Amino acid sequence: MNIEKTPQKNKFFLASDRIQALTDGIFAIAMTLMVLSIDLPKSVDEIDPNSLGKYLLSLKPDFIHYALSFILLALFWVDHHQQFYYIKKINRKILWINIFNLLFVALFPFSTSLMGDYPNQPVAAVFFISNLLLISLFLSWNWSAATSHSDLVDPNLDKTIIVREKRYRLIFIVISLVCLVLAFVIPEWSTIPYVFSFFFHFFLKNKNQKNLEEIQ
Amino acid sequence: MNIEKTPQKNKFFLASDRIQALTDGIFAIAMTLMVLSIDLPKSVDEIDPNSLGKYLLSLKPDFIHYALSFILLALFWVDHHQQFYYIKKINRKILWINIFNLLFVALFPFSTSLMGDYPNQPVAAVFFISNLLLISLFLSWNWSAATSHSDLVDPNLDKTIIVREKRYRLIFIVISLVCLVLAFVIPEWSTIPYVFSFFFHFFLKNKNQKNLEEIQ
Amino acid sequence: MNIEKTPQKNKFFLASDRIQALTDGIFAIAMTLMVLSIDLPKSVDEIDPNSLGKYLLSLKPDFIHYALSFILLALFWVDHHQQFYYIKKINRKILWINIFNLLFVALFPFSTSLMGDYPNQPVAAVFFISNLLLISLFLSWNWSAATSHSDLVDPNLDKTIIVREKRYRLIFIVISLVCLVLAFVIPEWSTIPYVFSFFFHFFLKNKNQKNLEEIQ
Amino acid sequence: MNIEKTPQKNKFFLASDRIQALTDGIFAIAMTLMVLSIDLPKSVDEIDPNSLGKYLLSLKPDFIHYALSFILLALFWVDHHQQFYYIKKINRKILWINIFNLLFVALFPFSTSLMGDYPNQPVAAVFFISNLLLISLFLSWNWSAATSHSDLVDPNLDKTIIVREKRYRLIFIVISLVCLVLAFVIPEWSTIPYVFSFFFHFFLKNKNQKNLEEIQ
Repeated sequence: MNIEKTPQKNKFFLASDRIQALTDGIFAIAMTLMVLSIDLPKSVDEIDPNSLGKYLLSLKPDFIHYALSFILLALFWVDHHQQFYYIKKINRKILWINIFNLLFVALFPFSTSLMGDYPNQPVAAVFFISNLLLISLFLSWNWSAATSHSDLVDPNLDKTIIVREKRYRLIFIVISLVCLVLAFVIPEWSTIPYVFSFFFHFFLKNKNQKNLEEIQ
Repeated sequence: MNIEKTPQKNKFFLASDRIQALTDGIFAIAMTLMVLSIDLPKSVDEIDPNSLGKYLLSLKPDFIHYALSFILLALFWVDHHQQFYYIKKINRKILWINIFNLLFVALFPFSTSLMGDYPNQPVAAVFFISNLLLISLFLSWNWSAATSHSDLVDPNLDKTIIVREKRYRLIFIVISLVCLVLAFVIPEWSTIPYVFSFFFHFFLKNKNQKNLEEIQ
Repeated sequence: MNIEKTPQKNKFFLASDRIQALTDGIFAIAMTLMVLSIDLPKSVDEIDPNSLGKYLLSLKPDFIHYALSFILLALFWVDHHQQFYYIKKINRKILWINIFNLLFVALFPFSTSLMGDYPNQPVAAVFFISNLLLISLFLSWNWSAATSHSDLVDPNLDKTIIVREKRYRLIFIVISLVCLVLAFVIPEWSTIPYVFSFFFHFFLKNKNQKNLEEIQ
Repeated sequence: MNIEKTPQKNKFFLASDRIQALTDGIFAIAMTLMVLSIDLPKSVDEIDPNSLGKYLLSLKPDFIHYALSFILLALFWVDHHQQFYYIKKINRKILWINIFNLLFVALFPFSTSLMGDYPNQPVAAVFFISNLLLISLFLSWNWSAATSHSDLVDPNLDKTIIVREKRYRLIFIVISLVCLVLAFVIPEWSTIPYVFSFFFHFFLKNKNQKNLEEIQ
């Protein structure tokens, strides 16, 4: 890291690779800490030995939300690096957009615990979805702020890629708003629309990638 | 990281070094979090001071499974980097194989806790072994998916290395299936066959390495 | 990391990029562990389902101190890398200043928990503010120790930047002392002056950055 | 990382920078997790508000052992990188020496918790000191194994540096054995001799460093 710290290369005070290193760290820890949201049976004495299987089955909402949250954070992590593939320099505004984004990434294991423990509570679902919505909004803001300054991004960055990334982020925000409405009606199923975000990601981004290869 | 982000060098949107950075992070955290699976005596007041030694001895299954799980995760970590030593580029399929692999790596501290707390329960042993089996299956899939595209791997990669890596992964899967059968009969000893995977790793991979040196 | 370990390049036994890697790791973990300071409701049985919303509202001081602590650690992290942007080599003294600094960074999640759980206790506020003060003092010491040896820092480093960084660190220490006095009178509001440190950071450092660009 | 993965550069299957990345990760997490060994007061209701200060004072052995353990892990981390400053390539033996070393590094937060909770118990002190002794033995073994193969280390590595590093590791092992004897007599003061290891480190290594500069 910071292998050549010559002032000519990194005009800004903080190289974009440092914010990427912090991002990798916080994402990796948040993704691994979420496993602590799955509660182990308290102790051998408190629980009937034969019922361990039943206990694990009762953890089903915890496992489902662990997997869903892990995949969603991975989606955000991929999007983050996809954005920083084109962002060559950062300024102070982009730095702080990213730090606030990471604040909500680091909060996400708490939201996952809450959702896993109270899958039938609208309040828990609203908290969980709002957390995702905030991460997504900061990622959108990051992309708008960076692409509006042509000196911060790769000069080869095509306008169609800028628009597609914005469109994908908009789709995610719309999905989150649908989930938010569902949270008040059927909280335990309110996060299902996020499964579609995975397919949108796969479909839309693949098109991006082909485009990227054509340019090169 | 991403020192030269010129489009010519990294044709794909995500450099393989980023997935390696996330992998290092999640493995390091999972390996260190496992120590939390060893429960400390609750408090000085609840326990007779003289019995601290006895208490630590009663944690023997926890310590054994901590050490076994740490070594097994280290084996997977080494295998992962050995594969990525040859994988020069990644596509979206390989990215998601890796993310699902990491999902089960991050789940492993939970499985280790379960196994350490309930060493005599078939359900705990099945859970623990299935987790290892899933990590191994995703690693196998990663290797098959990468080596089937000649443009993703090192052009110097020899066919014998491809076959040996596949053979080693197959051996690990067979060992896991043996453990799975044992889990229903003698759960507390069902993980012993994994000790052999360590020797297979050492023996088979050393042959790989000699081969590698011959090529160079 | 350590890509070229030729003795000519890194005259000192430990490259400054290694201490930066440890710093990134400890900051990322401390920032993410702080979320564990927000206590989840114990269990579904112990709590009335309708009161989950009320329970989350009662966590307000926890959320506020989580956010404040996250932002303050991010400020320190940015300052650390800003200092190391100019520090090209480290000696043993600077190494140990940094390790003691990280000792108090790693302690900070404990202080945040304490402050979030006991917002009305002067003792908790004094502990929290003293922790911040110690991190800041070690950062000041780091900068003084490094800039007093011209062979450790970038030869292009302007004297005005050295003075401004010192001035900013002094402002943070003065703010901390104000907070410390408030802690004995109104502990629950004693950390409010830190909000100003954010604005000083933004205002003073932006001036630094402009200066930096002029030099280049 | 692995920026140039050409077979000519990294003859061995695993670049030494990868084991360094895992080492940085596990050390950073172990050093930060140790803060969890300091128990927060259970809840506002269970404890008299005025007694918070007294409670924090009663945590004195926890704070002392947190600081001591953090500094000792930092010493090991510095030694590790000092060794890898000269180790240019690794073989399978060195890989596994390092993994077993990390196993005991990751176990260290548990030993610190034990020591902090039971400062007067010989069993806890023996556990804590044995853990440090094992880390030190693996570091010694790592250095012997690497320096006995001239093709693994920097050709400029002077014999006097090899001997001094071995001597320093021997001093640490002797200190640990003294602590181990004290653990049976005065467990609560048995770890004091480690404070001297810090001075030996500073004194002996500084001589190393001067020597290093002369060579260059």
